[in-house]
Amino acid sequence: MTASPTTRRQLVRVHNFGVSIDGFATGEGQALEAPFGHAGIRLHEWFSDTAMAYELQGGGPGGSRGIDNALIEAGFRGFGAEIMGRNKFGPQRGPWADESWQGWWGENPPFHTPVYVLTHHLRPSLKMAGGTTFHFRDASPQDVLAEAKQAADGLDVHVSGGPTVVRDFLAADLVDLLHVVVVPIVLGRGVRLWDGLEGVEERFEVETTASPRGVSHVIFSRRAS
Amino acid sequence: MTASPTTRRQLVRVHNFGVSIDGFATGEGQALEAPFGHAGIRLHEWFSDTAMAYELQGGGPGGSRGIDNALIEAGFRGFGAEIMGRNKFGPQRGPWADESWQGWWGENPPFHTPVYVLTHHLRPSLKMAGGTTFHFRDASPQDVLAEAKQAADGLDVHVSGGPTVVRDFLAADLVDLLHVVVVPIVLGRGVRLWDGLEGVEERFEVETTASPRGVSHVIFSRRAS
Repeated sequence: MTASPTTRRQLVRVHNFGVSIDGFATGEGQALEAPFGHAGIRLHEWFSDTAMAYELQGGGPGGSRGIDNALIEAGFRGFGAEIMGRNKFGPQRGPWADESWQGWWGENPPFHTPVYVLTHHLRPSLKMAGGTTFHFRDASPQDVLAEAKQAADGLDVHVSGGPTVVRDFLAADLVDLLHVVVVPIVLGRGVRLWDGLEGVEERFEVETTASPRGVSHVIFSRRAS
Repeated sequence: MTASPTTRRQLVRVHNFGVSIDGFATGEGQALEAPFGHAGIRLHEWFSDTAMAYELQGGGPGGSRGIDNALIEAGFRGFGAEIMGRNKFGPQRGPWADESWQGWWGENPPFHTPVYVLTHHLRPSLKMAGGTTFHFRDASPQDVLAEAKQAADGLDVHVSGGPTVVRDFLAADLVDLLHVVVVPIVLGRGVRLWDGLEGVEERFEVETTASPRGVSHVIFSRRAS
C-alpha cells in the first residue's frame, strides 16, 4: 500500500490586524482623506519602520527585521485569494456613483491574487496590474469563501478586513488563524472587532508576544479538532 | 546653603488590573458566589501560579518568580492607603440591609492600611485585624484622594478597583501609574474599563511586556510634566 499524496489543508488567515486596547479596529469617520477615520495611522504605526514596510513602499533596503517584521511577513506569504469588505476597498457607501474608484492601492495593488470584495452593490470585475483582480460579490461568508478557496488553487485565503468582515468570518467559525496586534491607545469610537464574539478564544490556542514598539501580537491558532 | 530634605512625591497607582481583550474589567452578574460575575476567575488566572499568590493564600513556598510575579509584587509594596469602589467591597447594591458584611477577605484582609470604600450608602468605619480599617465615603475622587494621601503618611495610594472607580480616577487625571493586564479572552459583557477615556494614553509613557502565560502587561507611567 502506497501513501497517497498528502493534500495540504487550505487555511483561512487574518494577519497584522491592529486593534486598540479598547477593542476598536478602525476609527470613526472614514473618508477619502482619512481611510481609518479619526484613528489615523495610529493602529498601523508599529508597521512603518519594518523592512516589509520599506519594501511595500518601493523604498530601498532598510527597516527593522525583528519580531514585528517576521510576523508581518507571514501575513504576505502563501495566499492564493483575498476577501475584503467594501469599506476596506473604498470610502464610498451605497450604490456606486460611477466605476472610476479602483481601490486605495494604485494600478498595481499589493495583493497579486483574486480579491473578493463583499458588497451589496455589484459592479464588473476589475483587472489590475500585477495579478490582482477585484471581484464584487453579494454573498455569505461561506459562499464567498468557497469561491475564494477554489480560486486560490491550494494556497491559503486571506481575510483582510475591515473589522466587520473579520468579525463575520469569526462568528461563522471560518478562521484558522487570527493575528491581532493590540495597540495601547484608547480609540474611544469606531468599529469594534469583538462584538458578538464572546468566548471565541475557546476555539483557539493563544500565544502573546510583545514587541519593542509597545504593541502585543496575539495569535489565535485554531485547535486541532 | 544646605539641601532641604527631599520629599518623595506620593504616587497614585493601579496595579495588576485584568482587562479582557475586548475591554471588560469585570463580568456581568456579580453575586456572593460570583465576585467577578460571568468572568469567573478568567481575568485573574495568570496570577494564580505565582509565588505572590502562594504567599497570599498562606501556602508554603512555591510558585513562579518570573515577570508576572515581579509585576504583581510591585502592586503590593509602598502603599499607605487604598481606595476601592463599593462593588469591589461586596456584592450588595443600594442601602445596607445590615452591617454584617465585612468584605470578601476574612478577618485579616490583605491591605494592612486604611481602605476608603466609595459608596453613597455610609456606615461606620470597620476595624479589622492586621492594620486594615474600612472607611466608607460618599465623596469625589479628588476629595477621597486628599484624605487617603493624608492617611498614607508619605506612602503611595492604591486605587484598586473596580473598573468604574479606576475609570473615574483616570478621567479626573489622578493616576500616576496604571498597570493593566490584557487577558486574551473575549468577555462580551460586563463593565468596560476604557469608556469615556479616548486618548488617555497621551498623558503616559507606555511599555508592554508579554508573559509566558499569554497575558500582556501594559504599563502606563505618567509623563514628567
